[in-house]
Amino acid sequence: MTVASAGEFGLIARVTARLGAASPFVLLGPGDDAAVVAAPDKRVVASTDVLVEGRHFRRDWSSARDVGHRAAGANLADIAAMGARPTALLVALCAPAGLQISWAEELADGLTAEAAKTGATVVGGDTSSSPTLTIAVTALGDLEGRAPVVRSGARPGDIVAVGGRIGHAAAGYTILSRGFRSPKLLVDAHRRPEIPYHLGPAAARLGATSMIDVSDGLLADLGHVATASAVGIDVRRSSFDVPEPMRDAAIALGVDPYGWILGGGDDHALAATFPPGTLLPADWLEIGEVLPASHIDADDGVTVDGCRYTGGPPGWDHFR
Amino acid sequence: MTVASAGEFGLIARVTARLGAASPFVLLGPGDDAAVVAAPDKRVVASTDVLVEGRHFRRDWSSARDVGHRAAGANLADIAAMGARPTALLVALCAPAGLQISWAEELADGLTAEAAKTGATVVGGDTSSSPTLTIAVTALGDLEGRAPVVRSGARPGDIVAVGGRIGHAAAGYTILSRGFRSPKLLVDAHRRPEIPYHLGPAAARLGATSMIDVSDGLLADLGHVATASAVGIDVRRSSFDVPEPMRDAAIALGVDPYGWILGGGDDHALAATFPPGTLLPADWLEIGEVLPASHIDADDGVTVDGCRYTGGPPGWDHFR
Repeated sequence: MTVASAGEFGLIARVTARLGAASPFVLLGPGDDAAVVAAPDKRVVASTDVLVEGRHFRRDWSSARDVGHRAAGANLADIAAMGARPTALLVALCAPAGLQISWAEELADGLTAEAAKTGATVVGGDTSSSPTLTIAVTALGDLEGRAPVVRSGARPGDIVAVGGRIGHAAAGYTILSRGFRSPKLLVDAHRRPEIPYHLGPAAARLGATSMIDVSDGLLADLGHVATASAVGIDVRRSSFDVPEPMRDAAIALGVDPYGWILGGGDDHALAATFPPGTLLPADWLEIGEVLPASHIDADDGVTVDGCRYTGGPPGWDHFR
Repeated sequence: MTVASAGEFGLIARVTARLGAASPFVLLGPGDDAAVVAAPDKRVVASTDVLVEGRHFRRDWSSARDVGHRAAGANLADIAAMGARPTALLVALCAPAGLQISWAEELADGLTAEAAKTGATVVGGDTSSSPTLTIAVTALGDLEGRAPVVRSGARPGDIVAVGGRIGHAAAGYTILSRGFRSPKLLVDAHRRPEIPYHLGPAAARLGATSMIDVSDGLLADLGHVATASAVGIDVRRSSFDVPEPMRDAAIALGVDPYGWILGGGDDHALAATFPPGTLLPADWLEIGEVLPASHIDADDGVTVDGCRYTGGPPGWDHFR
């Protein structure tokens, strides 16, 4: 059955039935003009991200459930990157009239499952027909009494560290682009990122001075931190081990795996800065240092081993 | 200059520069992984609505600023319909690479101006390229200590009333569809609805038992209330005066103006039910009565002057 034959309200009913049990944060869930979500901290953290077919995903590469995981994850990672705990998602689905309703149902399953990893649930949304399959997700979160960890707080001398996988999703994307389907670890990383949500609030508790989720690419995202904080950041390439499957794939494809690690996004690792001397748990990999802006010879404020990065694009521009 | 030549970050910078002064609700505005918005009530009201070119708007009928007003209004009306005060908007813009950046800037102007009517501001968003121009907006709001006014609270004996204009946007849509550009009152109502946001919290204070914003069509939306409340609703056609320009347009086009009034959406009037005996201010037009569901002979729970409505579709289905 297509979404057109189910109709707007049929689609909404079918999708809403898949959303699972509401979390205690949900005071009023789907079915009214708006949802009501608890904000015990008297502040709400909110972020929107959109996924467009052909630009962010392909239906021949990713299942509907995969796309649901990624759409939810991209947003939930933004909440975590503020040091907050995700509470709720709202989802707008624009679908071609001929889309199978099972695709929309499986998308809802993926959204629900990814949100459940953080304790959040889907509380509302909207649907429309559109020639272009598009999923816009808004995530809400609670700061649990902490200050938000923003991009602008990094100070010279701070440690730069990353929590979560890096370069995997970008490697998976390259592999799929070249027509391959393995190694599974990397291809799956593109399809469903494994996002270390819990490290966001943990970083805040450790005293992180700045944080960002790596969605555009590590160097590009650290560049956003450097710019916002008016500092420089130097990354040590030797910090990163290239995992075996990534090394093998890089050799097979004739590319430099550090291009994936330093320039690839979409793993939604968390990159944070911490005051010097902070004892970081094993979840975090120290990758560099914050320097005065004047010590950095690079337009975007980020160097690799003291030099401008010339190994490829530092990240992704969605219009280029 | 196109959005592609400006690039993603150029577009974001240009659009963000148009957003105006932040309201006191904005604790952290655009430029970080997420925004932080005050939720003094410890609850946040949240709603998402999406506008798709060709489905919800046409660039040859509406200016970018008009589309911004409509996109913001559709969401802000949902917040008002809960009896809440809007606080913030998040906006995802999916745009063809060739879109003029001035269009995106004027869209931001319209969003900002419409939000300002309610005291809300744009606090964040996302952009992507897409073949289909699409605007997904999420609105947040504060209940100011009141209970949310939901769809499910109507009781037999309640008064049914509408606040705001009705049928105007639908008439404007028909007029534009037939290739005409006047009367201006109606065409402008399609381009920029005049939404009575303040009546949402006012209805809550008056003791409204249920409320909905009229976006699909009056009878369709009252049907949602009837279903959620397990009641029937009878609407009196004679409650409505047909304004002169609407009567003239209906005669010229050979249509029944009550089709616009009873079946047309997109004015975002507020329809609410109030306990019997409630003294309603002049902002509200009494249009009918809540009855036991068993008194209503209509599948969707809504009759007009005691009979099933046969004058046209009761509302809009976005997939049909």
